[in-house]
Amino acid sequence: MRFSDLLSQLSEVTESTPREVGGDPELLGAESLERAGASQLSFLEAGHALSLALTASAAAAVLLPLDPELQEVAQARGLAWVALKDPRLAFAEALEALYPRTLPPAGIHASAVVDPSARIGEGVHLAARVVVGADCVLGAGCVLHPGVVLYEDVQLGEGCELHANAVLHPGSRLGRHCVVHSGAVIGSEGFGFVPSAQGWRKMPQTGQVVLEEGVEVGCGSTVDRPSVGETRLGAGTKIDNLVHIGHGVVTGRGCALAAQVGIAGGARLGNGVILAGQVGVANKAVIGDRAIASSKSGIHGEVGAGEVVSGYPAIPNRLWLRCSAAFSRLPEMAKTLRQLKAGSP
Amino acid sequence: MRFSDLLSQLSEVTESTPREVGGDPELLGAESLERAGASQLSFLEAGHALSLALTASAAAAVLLPLDPELQEVAQARGLAWVALKDPRLAFAEALEALYPRTLPPAGIHASAVVDPSARIGEGVHLAARVVVGADCVLGAGCVLHPGVVLYEDVQLGEGCELHANAVLHPGSRLGRHCVVHSGAVIGSEGFGFVPSAQGWRKMPQTGQVVLEEGVEVGCGSTVDRPSVGETRLGAGTKIDNLVHIGHGVVTGRGCALAAQVGIAGGARLGNGVILAGQVGVANKAVIGDRAIASSKSGIHGEVGAGEVVSGYPAIPNRLWLRCSAAFSRLPEMAKTLRQLKAGSP
Amino acid sequence: MRFSDLLSQLSEVTESTPREVGGDPELLGAESLERAGASQLSFLEAGHALSLALTASAAAAVLLPLDPELQEVAQARGLAWVALKDPRLAFAEALEALYPRTLPPAGIHASAVVDPSARIGEGVHLAARVVVGADCVLGAGCVLHPGVVLYEDVQLGEGCELHANAVLHPGSRLGRHCVVHSGAVIGSEGFGFVPSAQGWRKMPQTGQVVLEEGVEVGCGSTVDRPSVGETRLGAGTKIDNLVHIGHGVVTGRGCALAAQVGIAGGARLGNGVILAGQVGVANKAVIGDRAIASSKSGIHGEVGAGEVVSGYPAIPNRLWLRCSAAFSRLPEMAKTLRQLKAGSP
Repeated sequence: MRFSDLLSQLSEVTESTPREVGGDPELLGAESLERAGASQLSFLEAGHALSLALTASAAAAVLLPLDPELQEVAQARGLAWVALKDPRLAFAEALEALYPRTLPPAGIHASAVVDPSARIGEGVHLAARVVVGADCVLGAGCVLHPGVVLYEDVQLGEGCELHANAVLHPGSRLGRHCVVHSGAVIGSEGFGFVPSAQGWRKMPQTGQVVLEEGVEVGCGSTVDRPSVGETRLGAGTKIDNLVHIGHGVVTGRGCALAAQVGIAGGARLGNGVILAGQVGVANKAVIGDRAIASSKSGIHGEVGAGEVVSGYPAIPNRLWLRCSAAFSRLPEMAKTLRQLKAGSP
Repeated sequence: MRFSDLLSQLSEVTESTPREVGGDPELLGAESLERAGASQLSFLEAGHALSLALTASAAAAVLLPLDPELQEVAQARGLAWVALKDPRLAFAEALEALYPRTLPPAGIHASAVVDPSARIGEGVHLAARVVVGADCVLGAGCVLHPGVVLYEDVQLGEGCELHANAVLHPGSRLGRHCVVHSGAVIGSEGFGFVPSAQGWRKMPQTGQVVLEEGVEVGCGSTVDRPSVGETRLGAGTKIDNLVHIGHGVVTGRGCALAAQVGIAGGARLGNGVILAGQVGVANKAVIGDRAIASSKSGIHGEVGAGEVVSGYPAIPNRLWLRCSAAFSRLPEMAKTLRQLKAGSP
Repeated sequence: MRFSDLLSQLSEVTESTPREVGGDPELLGAESLERAGASQLSFLEAGHALSLALTASAAAAVLLPLDPELQEVAQARGLAWVALKDPRLAFAEALEALYPRTLPPAGIHASAVVDPSARIGEGVHLAARVVVGADCVLGAGCVLHPGVVLYEDVQLGEGCELHANAVLHPGSRLGRHCVVHSGAVIGSEGFGFVPSAQGWRKMPQTGQVVLEEGVEVGCGSTVDRPSVGETRLGAGTKIDNLVHIGHGVVTGRGCALAAQVGIAGGARLGNGVILAGQVGVANKAVIGDRAIASSKSGIHGEVGAGEVVSGYPAIPNRLWLRCSAAFSRLPEMAKTLRQLKAGSP
């Protein structure tokens, strides 16, 4: 694809966007600045430490931030370029254009096992060894990769993609365009046990899991169903690998949960909450809209809307940064304190 | 089911249990207080902040704690109710009564692959695409959901349930009524490598994993076998999702391990140990009976019976609470210290 | 196998190695000192607290460290023994000799689904229900256990072993003798989303994952592919269970990552890096050769070659030990500080 053709596919590009098509190179792919070769596109973000990287790059074309200096460097090197407010978003669009996805064709593989009561929409692809249980409903255009297992009574909206060996338990409800990655488990029994004279007694988990439109669940992640009611992930929420979502958790729209986050039963997240890697959220904690927790934080109780928290127990991020700095001076502080005490009357 | 019929199935209910059957409503299901509708049962626990919730609930019937005030509220609202020492346990029993489990029928699906040397007990259900290796022995009434893989020489006691895509490696021994949830892996090779001149050399893992009666292992959790000897989980131990149990770990009876706990090789847990989410236990650590570790704790060395520990490295919970509170005042403390030092002779 | 025959298979044993074959017992297996019986081999390491354990052991033969005192104990008990610099390494060799591995026979199970365009090397074993996608290339002697799924365009070097229900995504490249354990996922989409006016927009993940020769990936672990370029694990790197490796991570040779480690996108590890359980490494962090992070550490920024770090944020281990000790005295320190302040002018 010519660079000029690519530009016409970027949403931010208008007549007046600063650019230099140069020889209008033919682009065969994209790469990072360091690895890009003669027929590849690359991109730079503001804040990247990089006129150097740009100078050294062998890329044919580059998406730049709105920074005249970088544009001059690119110009001097004879690269084709365009300057954008959001080069990362444009790079996402460019990758889509350069590497168009080909969905697997509609059809049911001979080795798939589909209960006769299941209703399969138009254009659905059921790969080898897929199992679809009784009373399942699959919307049009769903793609189930090899080894996916749907227990009975699972419903998928249009255009869902379930990767290899994912498992969906009874009652799971997925909105349109959800993605479940390889080995993830949706709708499994919540960890509910009641102490009794005979040991732990299972609390039956009769509720269900609802993933709203556009939710994505990473490889090996688990989303449990509750004893009663719902576990619900709000529209557009994105979940990375090996995340645990306990029974009865509810999230708002557009949350992002990084790898190995764990959310205990009954916690509630608002809209746009971001949890970094390995964060833990305790039972019934409440996190407000657009709050952010940095990696490894542990959250109990309540976090207000828009707050940024860190540490365990989580405290405001700025305070935590200062406390952590002081922590590494604790031995010194202890020594000073001993000296003062010895010197005091 | 009528409320009065349900009462007859609750173990704690006797002639003299305080109750009010009222119109003896027909119950079609159960829900949380907030979500319950006109033909649903709900429950309240002591300590729940809730005469308000009770007032607002549309439930038809409710399991109450032994609290006359709540009973009056329920009475005033015309709800059917019963008052119990342990309404949560009763709710577990009620859910079993209201949502009776139907086990899948005995039989071997045509797509299951069963080695001829395997011995399959009466009433066993092998779902689609199950694989059973050589010399396996499955007790009566076991249920293997789709995609389960048993390597060779696996033995299951009566009434075990293995969920979709679970994997059991050679030598695994499960007692009666164990449950392995979707995607869990039992009996995999322990992470044993010996440094050598040629890099990491694998220590062969020739031991085996034993799950005693009634053990439950959550989705995606892994229980490794050791180089020699056993990894053993005591009877009635319950393990949540994404938990790692290293080679040679031994637990007592009735332990409860929450999601994302990790236990390194050779650690020993007593009876009734409770580890909250994301706790880590180091190599060969020893944890006494009924000890509790709060979430994200890291345990080295030894924890005494009945101790409650927190933090990393784990210290007694009460001390940790005070230390954590002081941690967030560290910048202040450092400032005071500087002032004192400047002011001192 | 006779003890004398076993000795001939241990790489460290020479003519002059101190030993006592005694009755040259027939060995039927190996066990820990505590569990070993009359026809079993065991081993002891220096530092083990153990002449006692040795005295109590019923083992027939034992691999000892170079410690004359232990040799005397063994002699006195009439055990066959040999004394070695590295008894642990010798025990690994002994287990291999005593428990020789039998690889499954070459062949393709009738229920395996193999795309006609795939190229399958000599001696490959494809077990029941394996799925091999288009254009895959499998080197000689690969073993794929039941339920393994290879998407299209996966290449495996000679002698790879993929355990049950492992999943390899398009473009994955494995060198010779790699092992992927049950349920692990290689080459899945990196967690790349760009904020846009319409919510999180997926950054296409067009790169690939490369495992160099001898890499081993534990059960349930996930190794993501990047938007462009590679995620690469250096030769001989060993990864335990439930580890997350983000998109674009690169490790050197011979790293060891313990269970539940998480490495965020773009981080770089040198050769021989060791990360203990539940360690987290942030985006684009850089860790030098042979650095070690103790369990639960959180690493941002840079760790120098050979450094040993602990804590979150990670600091040098020795400092962290002193800081952690001081942490548990914080309430005391705060009290002393209040007293000094009250007493000061």
